[in-house]
Amino acid sequence: MKISYRHLMVRVKDLDVSLAFYKRLGLIERHRTESEAGRYTNVFLCPPDQADGHADLELTYNWDGDDALPNDSRHFGHIAYRVEDIYALCQELMDAGITINRPPRDGHMAFVRSPDNISIELLQMGESKPPQEPWASMGNTGHW
Amino acid sequence: MKISYRHLMVRVKDLDVSLAFYKRLGLIERHRTESEAGRYTNVFLCPPDQADGHADLELTYNWDGDDALPNDSRHFGHIAYRVEDIYALCQELMDAGITINRPPRDGHMAFVRSPDNISIELLQMGESKPPQEPWASMGNTGHW
Repeated sequence: MKISYRHLMVRVKDLDVSLAFYKRLGLIERHRTESEAGRYTNVFLCPPDQADGHADLELTYNWDGDDALPNDSRHFGHIAYRVEDIYALCQELMDAGITINRPPRDGHMAFVRSPDNISIELLQMGESKPPQEPWASMGNTGHW
Repeated sequence: MKISYRHLMVRVKDLDVSLAFYKRLGLIERHRTESEAGRYTNVFLCPPDQADGHADLELTYNWDGDDALPNDSRHFGHIAYRVEDIYALCQELMDAGITINRPPRDGHMAFVRSPDNISIELLQMGESKPPQEPWASMGNTGHW
């Protein structure tokens, strides 16, 4: 029985706000479907080098709103991405007003949250970077 | 800024029960780490043909339990997999006592839930199968 990984779907409360967030991470919009009948928009995002559909993040936006969003839960963990420069990306995110819940003190790993509280893990590609301020002495904020 | 998809992590209440579930879907255990200090076990599962780490599902099992599991939420959607024979797999799952929340009436798509209520989408590889009983007339159960 063959099985292959396809995508991860998350629901979003505000499509524009969420698109801005995920594009800031470096994802691109690969595909979009809109359904008048179902009153929803699905946007498929992916890393630019993985645009063959095997690594998609699907955003589901319900036109009539979703009052249950954003929320938090325990059974969903996080989405993980390797990134080229974890310090540069975290600085960009912080400059955009996004909380770095777990700063990359070790030059290797950070956590942030999407506008809908989806926990996103960022991992430095290759070797960890040497510890560097302001990250090295920055404490955690909230949980992830 | 390069970014590449890495894995999806979900927390599980009972590691054995969850491993049995995901292995029944066709995933294999690729890697496992146990931490005495952190009192957790992480098991990385993947489709057999995607064992290079780019399509991992990471199960996090906390040795001291996680009373918040299983739960349900809105912001996390589902994990999607393409499968070789959606009818055969759904029959296997049903025989094992697993509810087919959304039966593959169209020969294309089904939804089930993991023991921790993670919603799993199953998609038929290639062309949809012709509608077939018992699926064609089977109603939905719950939501997904």
